[in-house]
Amino acid sequence: MEAVTDEGPRLTRKGRATRQRIVEAAAQLMFERGVAGTSTEDVRAAAGVSSSQLYHYFASKQHLVRAVIAHQTEAVLAAQEPQLSRLDCMGALEAWRDLVVALQTQRGCEGGCPLGSLAAELSEIDPDARQELVAGFARWEAAIRDGLTAMQRRGELSARADPGLLALQTLTAVQGGLLLSQVRRDVDPVRAGLDMALSHIRTFLI
Amino acid sequence: MEAVTDEGPRLTRKGRATRQRIVEAAAQLMFERGVAGTSTEDVRAAAGVSSSQLYHYFASKQHLVRAVIAHQTEAVLAAQEPQLSRLDCMGALEAWRDLVVALQTQRGCEGGCPLGSLAAELSEIDPDARQELVAGFARWEAAIRDGLTAMQRRGELSARADPGLLALQTLTAVQGGLLLSQVRRDVDPVRAGLDMALSHIRTFLI
Repeated sequence: MEAVTDEGPRLTRKGRATRQRIVEAAAQLMFERGVAGTSTEDVRAAAGVSSSQLYHYFASKQHLVRAVIAHQTEAVLAAQEPQLSRLDCMGALEAWRDLVVALQTQRGCEGGCPLGSLAAELSEIDPDARQELVAGFARWEAAIRDGLTAMQRRGELSARADPGLLALQTLTAVQGGLLLSQVRRDVDPVRAGLDMALSHIRTFLI
Repeated sequence: MEAVTDEGPRLTRKGRATRQRIVEAAAQLMFERGVAGTSTEDVRAAAGVSSSQLYHYFASKQHLVRAVIAHQTEAVLAAQEPQLSRLDCMGALEAWRDLVVALQTQRGCEGGCPLGSLAAELSEIDPDARQELVAGFARWEAAIRDGLTAMQRRGELSARADPGLLALQTLTAVQGGLLLSQVRRDVDPVRAGLDMALSHIRTFLI
């Protein structure tokens, strides 16, 4: 029962709420200070739980980090909805670009991409975390690819276009744009990166 | 005398060599394990110096981190030479893309971009480091822009093209590509990102 091992014991409603509170506190702290800068004691205090409660749900910081990756994957994808699930015309792609840029503007470009930041910090030191991040990025990429595939099926995108490659290229522009926007505290890089990706997609329009 | 404050005391030749050995050891460890995962004691041991020697050159870990950023900026730019300084035709841009991809292939995509990784880890927790990283990325971007500006002056790139914007867009593709290649341990993302950037530049060729 792999799923039960990963999720911990089957939880009561109250248990699920407590676990969720811990994960949300951990995700917020790790977004602000990084994983290394967040101790389980910080998380315990922020979530308002006891040490024994924390360890009941998460046997180690590494388990907690995995739950944070799962949580941030859902949060990052959800923050891009409803646009992300229907990127099947240029107008939708433009609306999605505007949404991504607006989210960064709201945050003053602080924190960068929650998944990208975790990836940069954890890829070399936590192979399990790296694998979970691969899966998270794959879902993001798949959502973009699905929209482009729908455009191609409707005959709006050339048969020469490779929706999988275009989706990967778009995600590189998003990730690099978010990182440079974070460093510069300026939305220009993420907007510029997305503009390039959309211009590139436009070259395949029929 | 700001420069002296930043550089520490004026050094003898032997002093400069010791300082350099410390910075190189710190850069390597921080590349492998992150800044948070690298203690000054780790650096001291790897560089083969005493504590008092380390503190003679670097009053704190933060000072050492700033020296590592300066070192990695030079190293990242140097690793892209001679291509980076003459990106003034499509052939040169293609050769540069191949060099960036080859460097990642050699490393098995481990570590990602030394500057990008430092940026992701430090942007929220060290404002001085963030500013130094902004300056490092600006040099990289300027090198790309200068090549494109030369192309435009020679009449090979349309007057409609904005070399500054194209350089920023290219750097977003590089950074996002390097991050996704690091996570996936696969050169496809960085190659795909660079291919997109070069395709986008090609749309402005005359």
